[in-house]
Amino acid sequence: MNGFTFHIPTKIYFGDDEFGHLGEEVASHGSTVLLTYGGGSIKRTGLYDRVLSQLRGQGMTVVELGGIDPNPRIASVRRGAELCREAGVDVVLAVGGGSTIDCSKFICAAAVSDRDPWDWFADKTTPIDDALPLVTVLTLAATGSEMDNGGVISNPETNQKEGRGAPCLLPKASFLDPANTFTVPPFQTAAGSADIISHTCEAYFSQDHDLYFLDTFMEGLLRTVMRFAPRAMEHGDDYEARANLMWASSWAINGFADGGKTQAWSVHPMEHELSAFYDITHGLGLAILTPAWMRHVLAKDPEGTLPKFCRFAENVFGICDPSLSDMERAEAGIQALQDFFCDELQLAGSLSAIGIDEEHFGAMAEKACHGPAIKGFVELTPADVVEIYRACL
Amino acid sequence: MNGFTFHIPTKIYFGDDEFGHLGEEVASHGSTVLLTYGGGSIKRTGLYDRVLSQLRGQGMTVVELGGIDPNPRIASVRRGAELCREAGVDVVLAVGGGSTIDCSKFICAAAVSDRDPWDWFADKTTPIDDALPLVTVLTLAATGSEMDNGGVISNPETNQKEGRGAPCLLPKASFLDPANTFTVPPFQTAAGSADIISHTCEAYFSQDHDLYFLDTFMEGLLRTVMRFAPRAMEHGDDYEARANLMWASSWAINGFADGGKTQAWSVHPMEHELSAFYDITHGLGLAILTPAWMRHVLAKDPEGTLPKFCRFAENVFGICDPSLSDMERAEAGIQALQDFFCDELQLAGSLSAIGIDEEHFGAMAEKACHGPAIKGFVELTPADVVEIYRACL
Repeated sequence: MNGFTFHIPTKIYFGDDEFGHLGEEVASHGSTVLLTYGGGSIKRTGLYDRVLSQLRGQGMTVVELGGIDPNPRIASVRRGAELCREAGVDVVLAVGGGSTIDCSKFICAAAVSDRDPWDWFADKTTPIDDALPLVTVLTLAATGSEMDNGGVISNPETNQKEGRGAPCLLPKASFLDPANTFTVPPFQTAAGSADIISHTCEAYFSQDHDLYFLDTFMEGLLRTVMRFAPRAMEHGDDYEARANLMWASSWAINGFADGGKTQAWSVHPMEHELSAFYDITHGLGLAILTPAWMRHVLAKDPEGTLPKFCRFAENVFGICDPSLSDMERAEAGIQALQDFFCDELQLAGSLSAIGIDEEHFGAMAEKACHGPAIKGFVELTPADVVEIYRACL
Repeated sequence: MNGFTFHIPTKIYFGDDEFGHLGEEVASHGSTVLLTYGGGSIKRTGLYDRVLSQLRGQGMTVVELGGIDPNPRIASVRRGAELCREAGVDVVLAVGGGSTIDCSKFICAAAVSDRDPWDWFADKTTPIDDALPLVTVLTLAATGSEMDNGGVISNPETNQKEGRGAPCLLPKASFLDPANTFTVPPFQTAAGSADIISHTCEAYFSQDHDLYFLDTFMEGLLRTVMRFAPRAMEHGDDYEARANLMWASSWAINGFADGGKTQAWSVHPMEHELSAFYDITHGLGLAILTPAWMRHVLAKDPEGTLPKFCRFAENVFGICDPSLSDMERAEAGIQALQDFFCDELQLAGSLSAIGIDEEHFGAMAEKACHGPAIKGFVELTPADVVEIYRACL
């Protein structure tokens, strides 16, 4: 059982009655702010106006960078950093989902660095030591970027999608108002929920011996998402459903669930290649890959994986029929998860259903393994990864 | 559903492989440290020497205040503050359980204040604005003081035991090494575990509508304590059991479990009067009172309390026999908790078993209600509290 440090100084303002503190929080970090956002849905919903009104109420100078893409690009990081330097920006305010927040983290770092920001992804030992303060307003429950110190950036020129993290990238404060996610359409709600489930599974499925307490936490988190994601898809303005998804999204990936486990993710690296090559929605890719990955690792290392799959089946899905063998129980749990993705979240169940064939499987598998293997729950070679991709066709 | 803020900047070093960072962490806050501790068990276990060696390795000047009592007294707060002022202390290092840490929080505040520290308890609107930095080394999983900003201090002259909290009292860092609790005797392990259970129940049993996610968290936390407390009592050096209890103790009371619920505790105020009048172990008092309190509020307001008691029975104790009525299920859950306290934790099941009679019940009940009533899960008048005390005889 490994030790760990836990340190999340981000201040969270949670709920629709906390949003009024935004102006004073941002202004506490300086007088000139870079406001970042995505495709402009925040203008349609009125959130943009509410944010600006609070910033102007504090007399702040506001510079803007809109149009940050899903799967955000290194070009946006460069452009944001330029804007910061030109305008003498003191603080960045990211209003959006994980893409906008991830991109903004590296804007914060690039604004105070002489490097080209892709250096941090091309060579992951390049230090990220300093960054402007970041405040976020979350509009999509999914990536957990609002309460962690990492992010993922794409480089379309090289077909790369790479992650980095550093303590200085942690947001100073994040505003989690579930009402800001009322307009998220059912598909994006489903994909975000699949992302939360995947983050949790990446930590949960480990052969490291860790704290039972944290397993109970993750099982409860999974049950929460499974209970409320369909409700939020059906009734977008269900505050209780949105609130549960939003707070669960932050806690799936802020480090608490990991305890002292080795950080070795399996499905995310495989999915990152899918969305790097095909620009598909990240959560959709995860939902397609996860059950196939589970079946593959269960078959490859039944002894090492069976106990955890049985626990998952029992504590997440209530599968405890004593007439089932352990293997049957494990398989029933995996099937229940796949059924949840397909039937409840209404996500496509195969790669071919979203127009992806096996053309790039070999190249994607090599990249996903970053060389010899993904050292996750069960070690996966490029050949394993190709098999998993194929099982998803 | 109310909003809330969540902000715990305390840095946690968890595990036996993290203890070596103690010296550098303390030294990062200054060069003169006040080392506080309790009755001296840390000298017998060798922890005192290991701590001093790390402080001296950083060239720090060390001032000491030992002998802090269980149910720490205001006199110790005054004495510690004097020492800080005399020696120009920069940082306080508390090595102990909740009593030592609680006391040290108010030493930190009193050291930089002109007030007499009892002012903060006599009039709870008196602000606590500033404090020396506090680092803690936890030696008992119980109160959660290592990761929250509150504490409780006793005044034997007035028979008062009062709590206060303030953001400036939050420890800067806490060292949670489960091995430092190996020598905690079975009775103290049991009492600490009862305290963790009670903290969780105070937040869990609420008629406020709050996040399902947090209920799953608290149910998992309760199952964790019930699984590992008996193991830690039987084998003091069971690292896994000690680790689960230790991390659960911090999370039962650091604010996460509360979400946006009204903070209205019931059993703690009743117990604080017991230990103020009789100086009994806090967790023992909680274990005796909790089942009686549950039965009382279930009888007083069955409509308001039954759904939560049924949930508790099912999700914590697995009581889901469909032949039981809701009331029977609720009662079975309460009985299961009482059996756990008596049979597994081997704690006394009544006040008379620990030599307490009804002499002071009236006075204690008045004080526990701070006037008209305890406004918790179900409102309790002094007459209700006397009935609960009587049910514990």
